[in-house]
Amino acid sequence: MTSEIAQTPKPPYYAVIFTSERTERDKGYVEMANEMVKLASVQPGFLGVESAREGVGITVSYWESLEAIQNWKRNERHMIAQKLGKSDWYLRYKTRVCKVERDYGFEKD
Amino acid sequence: MTSEIAQTPKPPYYAVIFTSERTERDKGYVEMANEMVKLASVQPGFLGVESAREGVGITVSYWESLEAIQNWKRNERHMIAQKLGKSDWYLRYKTRVCKVERDYGFEKD
Repeated sequence: MTSEIAQTPKPPYYAVIFTSERTERDKGYVEMANEMVKLASVQPGFLGVESAREGVGITVSYWESLEAIQNWKRNERHMIAQKLGKSDWYLRYKTRVCKVERDYGFEKD
Repeated sequence: MTSEIAQTPKPPYYAVIFTSERTERDKGYVEMANEMVKLASVQPGFLGVESAREGVGITVSYWESLEAIQNWKRNERHMIAQKLGKSDWYLRYKTRVCKVERDYGFEKD
């Protein structure tokens, strides 16, 4: 997974916060997670992704528009991943679609 | 740190996504991080927090309003933590203030 701070443009843009708790079934999970990051990153309107798991998993993907998010949600391969997520990999999750209104950052000298 | 999926009300509400990369200076970090989660959670308008670090750290806090976020940003003890964050604990970070427009979840039977 990509694990750096995403380089996003000036707001407004959109964020999808996906917070999850996993089952103990690992079969195929890591491969699919990596494939989804790779596939998402070539979708129209994709801006970046950040991901970390420590007990709970948090993946935030950034998008130009709500339309881009909808298109990704309906991507055929992504729909297979979503189905396997429910049947095999996740105990529970929450997806939040957000409009990023303001951002600021810090970088050490 | 709290590491479960936050129980948030029906949208709209607000999210602050704080993504960070740490220095190797640990002195006081864990204590302050725990203190900030505890202190945030008793602020007016606080709705919940989710946090994970795996290389990159992602902490998402949820709030009723932009005003609640501003008040928390200006909390005296939090301002000390922010200052120490820049001088000691973070190589870089990005803070994104978002309006959560839509959410949905899944829970295994």
